[in-house]
Amino acid sequence: MRMYDLIMKKRNGGALSRSEIDEMIAGYTAGQIPDYQMAAMMMAIYFRGMSPEETVALTMAMAHSGDRMDLSAIAGVKVDKHSTGGVGDKTSIALAPMAAACGVKIAKMSGRGLGHTGGTIDKLESFAGFTTGITAERFVRQVNEIGISIMGQTADIAPADRKLYALRDVTATVDNMSLIASSIMSKKLASGADAIVLDVKTGSGAFMKTEEDSFALAREMVTLGNMAGRKTIAVVSDMDQPLGRAVGNALEVQEAIETLRGEGPEDFAGLCRTLGTYMLLLGGAAADEQEAESMLDRVVRDGSALRKLAEFVEAQGGDAGMVYDTSLLPQAAIVEEIAASQSGYVERIDCDEIGICSLLLGGGRETKESAVDLSVGLVLHRKVGDYVTAGESLATIHANDRERLGEARERFQKAYHFSDAAPVLQPLIRGVVRG
Amino acid sequence: MRMYDLIMKKRNGGALSRSEIDEMIAGYTAGQIPDYQMAAMMMAIYFRGMSPEETVALTMAMAHSGDRMDLSAIAGVKVDKHSTGGVGDKTSIALAPMAAACGVKIAKMSGRGLGHTGGTIDKLESFAGFTTGITAERFVRQVNEIGISIMGQTADIAPADRKLYALRDVTATVDNMSLIASSIMSKKLASGADAIVLDVKTGSGAFMKTEEDSFALAREMVTLGNMAGRKTIAVVSDMDQPLGRAVGNALEVQEAIETLRGEGPEDFAGLCRTLGTYMLLLGGAAADEQEAESMLDRVVRDGSALRKLAEFVEAQGGDAGMVYDTSLLPQAAIVEEIAASQSGYVERIDCDEIGICSLLLGGGRETKESAVDLSVGLVLHRKVGDYVTAGESLATIHANDRERLGEARERFQKAYHFSDAAPVLQPLIRGVVRG
Repeated sequence: MRMYDLIMKKRNGGALSRSEIDEMIAGYTAGQIPDYQMAAMMMAIYFRGMSPEETVALTMAMAHSGDRMDLSAIAGVKVDKHSTGGVGDKTSIALAPMAAACGVKIAKMSGRGLGHTGGTIDKLESFAGFTTGITAERFVRQVNEIGISIMGQTADIAPADRKLYALRDVTATVDNMSLIASSIMSKKLASGADAIVLDVKTGSGAFMKTEEDSFALAREMVTLGNMAGRKTIAVVSDMDQPLGRAVGNALEVQEAIETLRGEGPEDFAGLCRTLGTYMLLLGGAAADEQEAESMLDRVVRDGSALRKLAEFVEAQGGDAGMVYDTSLLPQAAIVEEIAASQSGYVERIDCDEIGICSLLLGGGRETKESAVDLSVGLVLHRKVGDYVTAGESLATIHANDRERLGEARERFQKAYHFSDAAPVLQPLIRGVVRG
Repeated sequence: MRMYDLIMKKRNGGALSRSEIDEMIAGYTAGQIPDYQMAAMMMAIYFRGMSPEETVALTMAMAHSGDRMDLSAIAGVKVDKHSTGGVGDKTSIALAPMAAACGVKIAKMSGRGLGHTGGTIDKLESFAGFTTGITAERFVRQVNEIGISIMGQTADIAPADRKLYALRDVTATVDNMSLIASSIMSKKLASGADAIVLDVKTGSGAFMKTEEDSFALAREMVTLGNMAGRKTIAVVSDMDQPLGRAVGNALEVQEAIETLRGEGPEDFAGLCRTLGTYMLLLGGAAADEQEAESMLDRVVRDGSALRKLAEFVEAQGGDAGMVYDTSLLPQAAIVEEIAASQSGYVERIDCDEIGICSLLLGGGRETKESAVDLSVGLVLHRKVGDYVTAGESLATIHANDRERLGEARERFQKAYHFSDAAPVLQPLIRGVVRG
């Protein structure tokens, strides 16, 4: 195999065979194929696309490029959940304990990542002492003992994907559906879960801006998961405005805890219920949707989901007391209201802009080296469809720096758009894609 | 300027501005833009193409990326001639002395290159002692004194093109018309000639296999030359079979000398006459085509073109005696005939295959490090349209190695295709493209 010939083949619209893709990924991971040839290949794929067979082959090749988690020592069906990401997405922190409290085995790898807030791991570090830097042995033991563990993604999971994504990121070859799907799914497959529930976001705050693209990505990933022998379901959910009310690390943890107490915002609680239902079904913990929903309601009502979170935090070295007293979570020095400059219905929120406010406050990472300020962020009091009177508070802003607060406040005001008539509301759940 | 944004712009079908292209080429030449980003850009250009404005900007940026020859100390119009290359293309060796004998100033840079035979420089080295490794000062002085000099291309002419071409060569991004045109023209512009006559080959032995592509490339290059202020004309000529009869370095030199004596093959002599006519016109040495043709005929008839070659060879340290006695040129040890295996009209010759025969005999370079055997090659006795009787000689083969001779002979036989009816002959000159 000569890489040149493969680039030419793809450039001319041909399909790469499984063995060609295997050799290409092995050669690239080993450093035998240079970045410039792979960059040309990625751009050719951007223009020519990949067949379902090619996409599966690429996904499997990347999944097999490094270590794979062996979860066979955990009894029962291991269910993973993955979100394509958005603003205020604290789903795992509430959903994982809920599903675990219902008997589903949660053995999840998670990341930090770049973004408006930190990743799930950063958020969980709001609990003083909490660590995800645990060994695979401890990870497996903990899942067997209490039904839930989240560990940091190690460097050896799908290294080909990591290297390829870094290259795509600087060569404008990220936004191709097959490449996006194979990148996500290669990591999920290498992480060893038996079943996968995907939360594909759609809208102004999501990577996929249109429903059409979001459903296409959902279908592509479900196909990949099922072809790899994992039960996979994708939910397409709204990200045209922030999820829930809290945006920021500790603030989102607080909202997740409120949701586990049955006091969370309706949209976020609803999303946890929908995703949880599919986790319970795929995990074999419930026979049908109705049973799953009532189980999820029960573990919230009887406090067992909240206790599961406390148990999980404690098992990984964190201060479980914070679960029961959220005033102990990291707090920002400055807390102010952002007043509405006019009256009217909230017609639209530039979702990405709200994320940038969080980033400006110090709540996210611009580069891998950035430190995340866990205490800062925003809590929205008015969302799309709400009527607001001029002078009322749109949101509470939590900051540690006056200058940053000023910038974020200005940006926040511009992200809200008002109208005289009540806007038509879009449903939170846009659809479900099954294999 | 961020290279990422430029890749994205081109990928999405936008046009790069002149300043964006300038910065991109400067950054790439300086090593500030990595190969992988440029490879992605080249593949995006492959799919999206470039506008005439972009192509001009790229050509000028590459022409200005290194040294430019200053030929202002040479009186008169300096005319350059460039061929896109083919099998048996010894045109410069006959044409340059012809044009110089007619008063056109020939100040030409030439290369060695990879190919079926050596480049013009290799061929000229058939004259014992001949060198193109001369200083720019001597080059200019020689043109002023005798009207002709050919020097080796120095490393500092259009370094951006050299670097970019090497990258395109390994990333399957060579065959884009705008990129090919700008690569050729950037070197020509940096070489400093006032006028350029292009010989664009078409057919099975050429880079451009179809007339359509050849004319498109010709138009693109003529536009580039004229926009850069150089009088430029392109001739599209046949390369469906080797040019003339000789293929091989010293053998081609011998054929060029025969042509300067008025004894050359009709097709090759005709091509020299056509290209020479445009060189004389652009160089201001003739008022019209008729005058140019009669001047070219005269310098052959009266021996002044042949004497100009001898003068030129001597000025650059070569043995001018070889010009008058070609038996002194390098000779191969084994000279044999290749007999026709059947009777019939020669319907078609796989032109590339004849080139490969020369390469197999040792006459060309497979890698930059290969040594060229100047003495080997082939002289064709039958070309397309000729009738041949089984057993008659198709060609004489000149070799220094029995094994290589055997391989070349076998390959040669397969390259000839016969028919019972006389084939329709294509004209040598397919057309002329003027600004």
